[in-house]
Amino acid sequence: MQTPWDHRYAQRTQRMKGSAIRELLKVTEMPDVISFGGGMPAPDVFPIEEFREACDKVLRNQGKQALQYGPTDGYLPLREMIAAYSARFGIEVTPENILITSGSQQALDLIGKIFINRGDRILVECPTYLGALQAWNAYGAEYVTVQSNENGMVLDQLESSMRSGPKFIYSLPNFQNPTGVTYSLECRQKLVEVADRYGVPIVEDDPYGQLRFEGENLPSIVNLDNKLRAQNGTYTGNVIYLSTFSKTLSPGIRLAWVIAPTEVIHKMVMAKQGTDLQTPTFTQIIAYEIIKNGFLDKHIQTIQNVYRERRDIMLEELQKNMPAGVQWTHPQGGLFLWVTLPEYMDSNVILKDAIAEKVAFVPGDCFFPNGGGQNTMRLNFSNAKPEKIREGIQRLGRVIQKYVK
Amino acid sequence: MQTPWDHRYAQRTQRMKGSAIRELLKVTEMPDVISFGGGMPAPDVFPIEEFREACDKVLRNQGKQALQYGPTDGYLPLREMIAAYSARFGIEVTPENILITSGSQQALDLIGKIFINRGDRILVECPTYLGALQAWNAYGAEYVTVQSNENGMVLDQLESSMRSGPKFIYSLPNFQNPTGVTYSLECRQKLVEVADRYGVPIVEDDPYGQLRFEGENLPSIVNLDNKLRAQNGTYTGNVIYLSTFSKTLSPGIRLAWVIAPTEVIHKMVMAKQGTDLQTPTFTQIIAYEIIKNGFLDKHIQTIQNVYRERRDIMLEELQKNMPAGVQWTHPQGGLFLWVTLPEYMDSNVILKDAIAEKVAFVPGDCFFPNGGGQNTMRLNFSNAKPEKIREGIQRLGRVIQKYVK
Repeated sequence: MQTPWDHRYAQRTQRMKGSAIRELLKVTEMPDVISFGGGMPAPDVFPIEEFREACDKVLRNQGKQALQYGPTDGYLPLREMIAAYSARFGIEVTPENILITSGSQQALDLIGKIFINRGDRILVECPTYLGALQAWNAYGAEYVTVQSNENGMVLDQLESSMRSGPKFIYSLPNFQNPTGVTYSLECRQKLVEVADRYGVPIVEDDPYGQLRFEGENLPSIVNLDNKLRAQNGTYTGNVIYLSTFSKTLSPGIRLAWVIAPTEVIHKMVMAKQGTDLQTPTFTQIIAYEIIKNGFLDKHIQTIQNVYRERRDIMLEELQKNMPAGVQWTHPQGGLFLWVTLPEYMDSNVILKDAIAEKVAFVPGDCFFPNGGGQNTMRLNFSNAKPEKIREGIQRLGRVIQKYVK
Repeated sequence: MQTPWDHRYAQRTQRMKGSAIRELLKVTEMPDVISFGGGMPAPDVFPIEEFREACDKVLRNQGKQALQYGPTDGYLPLREMIAAYSARFGIEVTPENILITSGSQQALDLIGKIFINRGDRILVECPTYLGALQAWNAYGAEYVTVQSNENGMVLDQLESSMRSGPKFIYSLPNFQNPTGVTYSLECRQKLVEVADRYGVPIVEDDPYGQLRFEGENLPSIVNLDNKLRAQNGTYTGNVIYLSTFSKTLSPGIRLAWVIAPTEVIHKMVMAKQGTDLQTPTFTQIIAYEIIKNGFLDKHIQTIQNVYRERRDIMLEELQKNMPAGVQWTHPQGGLFLWVTLPEYMDSNVILKDAIAEKVAFVPGDCFFPNGGGQNTMRLNFSNAKPEKIREGIQRLGRVIQKYVK
């Protein structure tokens, strides 16, 4: 249908692409398809009973507050609790440094909105998180890319890339989406040191940091940066840090947070007023009620155990079923691993075949902002149950086998 | 604290201003201040018990779905129900024409994001809704203004303003925020006719349409436009229509919807993916559970009765307490009325005095995109209880009396 709107789209709308992943999800929602395509947490570990109790209690005791408008920066007790939680990981901040957002996706959008002019270069890993590219493409961002290996950013490339004058560095140090890679301590230290030397700030996106099920926690970028600058844990403001309740409590409540300098928070609050006014009061109070007595620590252990088992099964089945020349990462946490096929294979072609065989994944090229990655794929191991993971990787192995030259 | 972010803000960030209303709310949250400043619904009529039952039921029966990611366009049964609801008001659409948004504020942001290039002119009433200006300022909008009177837009001005080539017309036909004015049938018809003649589409923002407590419902702009074009009720796409559950169920769940041509919905979905991925699954399913059996019809009557009483009391007290030369509107619904002081008075000056006397309002100038309105103020009558309204208007009358020359 022709409408008068057709010729009225803004220039930026030309740059928007729908998420390949969200499109794919529609195809793979058929119950007999085993999908490693989404980024969904395991619903088996959702704390449903805790949600039910919290809803009941909050609506009995604070119903009028929970259903009313609230402040744009977020529910104060929740922000206070996040400040206390952050301090345990060496990030000393006050609630004035914290903004509650409607998922980390909104934090990425607000960062784009207040910082990115058309043509600004953002330094990103290659591959990097698709959602950040989607958020920032709308503001006309260009990307300078640094390749990554099993230890994080390739450090030689990092320094030379800094000379292109990026507005900021976008970094996912823990179990990166899409690769599952974790930065080594050396990579973290070098990143902080180089950023400091060139005066370029960092956005640290850490949705999965709490979901480490192997190895020891490494200090966050924001923590190392604070040490470099202040010789103590006080937040100095070179790093904007993002985290979320999506992977620990529930993605369906869309609740995340930003830690940033107060002036940046002030600007983000103004932008958020025009964007969605506030994150729901209701979900914020419910989340606070669930976690205020330390529920998360125990619950995260449950999640870690489930995800470790699923990763192990996926790794075992990959080993058994993939032809020679196929490589994959060994994530120490998070939700994803990354498969690199022989260079002559094209994962977009393979996907069509795979869907016909009732197994799905995300072709890796969508995570490369400036092209490339045709022979890569992202696999999610958190969502499917163990027996489905076995069956799905077996199907995928048979499909890929057909493409071996 | 100086940080490396300070010199990195985008140009558009210079155009952002915090909402005067949200700033004011902080001042007036002290319990002894009677505030007519916010736009808050009466918490006394929130359906708290219905929320409690719905949460309990949904978490028992659909917990995994309610806490998981869901589609960007929204929960399908909710979209189907909105389509059926819209049909009762003569808007025949399918769920493909409907997008669930995180409050109507997000709908305004997404419209700005996909349609507004820097320098585009938007035709707005003067005064108009502040939240739309906040959303669109970020995208570099300019405004062509049409004055309004007690019947809506001043029709002579409408036609001449169309010659400036606005990208679209922004219209609030029912109990407008801030004035409380409702367009006459003639105004509605003329708006549709002129927009059609000049080929300019319309955004119809209707958050309060269901809250009419006096007079008869008039056809919506989208409805009249469809009749003009198609000689039947089928949605033809010249009008993007916005409405919300904020004023009927709860503002604290941030749940609203857009009706638009499928191609516009498709573009808005792409923009929403990069903005916040999706509106919370949890709140959508809860809202659906509450209203699926017709709860809203009955509940809206309750709200209408409460708001009618509060408006009547405010009108009565204004009559008793305001000095000669002060005028106000007589809203037939909604949450606000509009006071025009003698021209020599400045409502921003008066506000300081008023807050000292423990009563607050919103100075009207913030609703004028191109300046003006210094002698106006917006009063909210939905939030305060009757005895507070009486006391508050008496205080306000005493303050204004001091400024009479």
